[in-house]
Amino acid sequence: MSSTTGTRGESVTPANPAYGTVVDTTDVTALLERGRALSAPVLRAAVDRLAPPMDTVAAYHFGWIDAQGRPADGDGGKAVRPALALLSAEAAGAPAEAGIPGAVAVELVHNFSLLHDDLMDGDEQRRHRDTVWKVHGPAQAILVGDALFALANEILLELGTVEAGRAARRLTTATRKLIDGQAQDISYEHRERVTVEECLEMEGNKTGALLACAVSIGAVLGGADDRTADVLEAYGYHLGLAFQAVDDLLGIWGDPESTGKQTWSDLRQRKKSLPVVAALAAGGPASARLGELLAADAKSSDFDSFSEEEFAARAALIEEAGGREWTAQEARRQHTVAIEALNGVDMPEPVRAQLTALADFVVVRKR
Amino acid sequence: MSSTTGTRGESVTPANPAYGTVVDTTDVTALLERGRALSAPVLRAAVDRLAPPMDTVAAYHFGWIDAQGRPADGDGGKAVRPALALLSAEAAGAPAEAGIPGAVAVELVHNFSLLHDDLMDGDEQRRHRDTVWKVHGPAQAILVGDALFALANEILLELGTVEAGRAARRLTTATRKLIDGQAQDISYEHRERVTVEECLEMEGNKTGALLACAVSIGAVLGGADDRTADVLEAYGYHLGLAFQAVDDLLGIWGDPESTGKQTWSDLRQRKKSLPVVAALAAGGPASARLGELLAADAKSSDFDSFSEEEFAARAALIEEAGGREWTAQEARRQHTVAIEALNGVDMPEPVRAQLTALADFVVVRKR
Repeated sequence: MSSTTGTRGESVTPANPAYGTVVDTTDVTALLERGRALSAPVLRAAVDRLAPPMDTVAAYHFGWIDAQGRPADGDGGKAVRPALALLSAEAAGAPAEAGIPGAVAVELVHNFSLLHDDLMDGDEQRRHRDTVWKVHGPAQAILVGDALFALANEILLELGTVEAGRAARRLTTATRKLIDGQAQDISYEHRERVTVEECLEMEGNKTGALLACAVSIGAVLGGADDRTADVLEAYGYHLGLAFQAVDDLLGIWGDPESTGKQTWSDLRQRKKSLPVVAALAAGGPASARLGELLAADAKSSDFDSFSEEEFAARAALIEEAGGREWTAQEARRQHTVAIEALNGVDMPEPVRAQLTALADFVVVRKR
Repeated sequence: MSSTTGTRGESVTPANPAYGTVVDTTDVTALLERGRALSAPVLRAAVDRLAPPMDTVAAYHFGWIDAQGRPADGDGGKAVRPALALLSAEAAGAPAEAGIPGAVAVELVHNFSLLHDDLMDGDEQRRHRDTVWKVHGPAQAILVGDALFALANEILLELGTVEAGRAARRLTTATRKLIDGQAQDISYEHRERVTVEECLEMEGNKTGALLACAVSIGAVLGGADDRTADVLEAYGYHLGLAFQAVDDLLGIWGDPESTGKQTWSDLRQRKKSLPVVAALAAGGPASARLGELLAADAKSSDFDSFSEEEFAARAALIEEAGGREWTAQEARRQHTVAIEALNGVDMPEPVRAQLTALADFVVVRKR
């Protein structure tokens, strides 16, 4: 893996959890910026339709205002999905703009799931800020999540076209998988052992399905047939698995300054993420020792007051058992499968190059 | 108002909160039974699609199993909406069966809102049973609510027709209003005064919008044009307002044996329902005394241990100030407007008679 498509401006050279190499992400920055610029006004207009106080709560969630209602220049996230939805339209030979309602609908569903998942999981922080349920209470988190989900369907269905109906159906399928994934995630937290296969299935549902939808929805709105959309979804699904594998690495070894999460974040939440389940499945002394420790942790009443050193010791065992390296390899595997999937469909070469660059970006990001 | 369309079997003669007269509801019983019989298998099959444990949690919510997972012969509610959705198809000249996916989708949305509202409102009982969040925890109530909402869209959109897309759009609009209504309901609980107009707007959103959708969705699926669907929605919207006015009467003066709720249920929850806001708006000594009491109650730390007598005293003041009679009149007014709306559209006379009978039933029910 080396520098890919960047030609303009200065190189960004992030440390690379999956590859450990230097990648030029210049073009990706522009792609993400375009996705954000074209979708943000439509997203804001959609959220403005919400009745008070839901509009305010949603604006807080998106980072447009702070907890006191003052305008904020919030971190709206990486905006990978809007960028994919616009490229998706171009992959079908339509203008990027044809993908905008899809980009906005996918962002609305993504943020609906964040609002509800943060509440279900008891997560108090997201993107360096208190989560909605912490600031506005659980009822508003539920209600505004519901409203964003409904709004996603509204944005598509009000287009009134056959294509919009097909796009809404794909979004609904993806949302159902998203919900299945969250159900699995919750149930796994109460189980002592989760297999690598179960973990991958859960991550495919939680992350793969909506990324897959983002990469197909623009094409569907742009008039693509189902076969083209399915191929694009295959790319997006594996991209999502690569994305999540990197997320799982960052969830344990990420820099809190970059991720906006606590150190050892996923370990503190007892998440059975890929590095953990891979380490437990690996066998050998470190794997066995990790299994004993996590089993004891599950019963420990002191868990919430564990020191940095205690989490660091668990992270070291995961690494020693091979969970870190396996997960980095998995990210590379999924990245490769994603890019190969693109061969199944004709599309303008610049679009193919940009989808490839985005896939590269996903595995090298630091947050 | 007198006995309407009943011809078969024995008369059911409930006490009538809005009219105080005896109405034959025989035909309505058959109508409700048909709605239940045709939609229940499709509803069950839809819920069976949910991944574990969501299928079990949903089955508990619908009353198909008890908290231990044993089969139960649950009270699935009045099933007014499925009956309306089937009549709706017939109003458009289509067979009743054409309305089934609409009936199921509306029931799914209705139950999605019950799951979330019960959690947001802290309601521990529904239909004589512990609510889902009490039995399975808040996370499952959120998650399964989300899943039912997604399933509602799936059931419609997988039909893949233009009509299904139009039906899904109407359902989405209704769902947004439902959510708006819940937002208003929550915000009103924290306010000292709510106007009668605000209360009616909230009830139109919370109850009118989805009943309106139930009465139009079958017609849309059966090929009706938008004007016909709009007229049917007008009937359903006013029917919903009549329905809710009766609900508000039952929420204070209903028989706990019939309603499955505590005595003075809405007063215990400080609900600013129609009888309360009408009484507060009426003026006069009873109205003023009620206002003082409720204002004191809002600050009282003893509220949760209030005796039956204390709630009875408040109910008596509401009645004395005219809130009970005003609400009963409002139910009759909305009932009349609903039935008059039906004149705006051609439909087979038996269907018109049945829609009229259902409207009559809604204002005479005891639960």
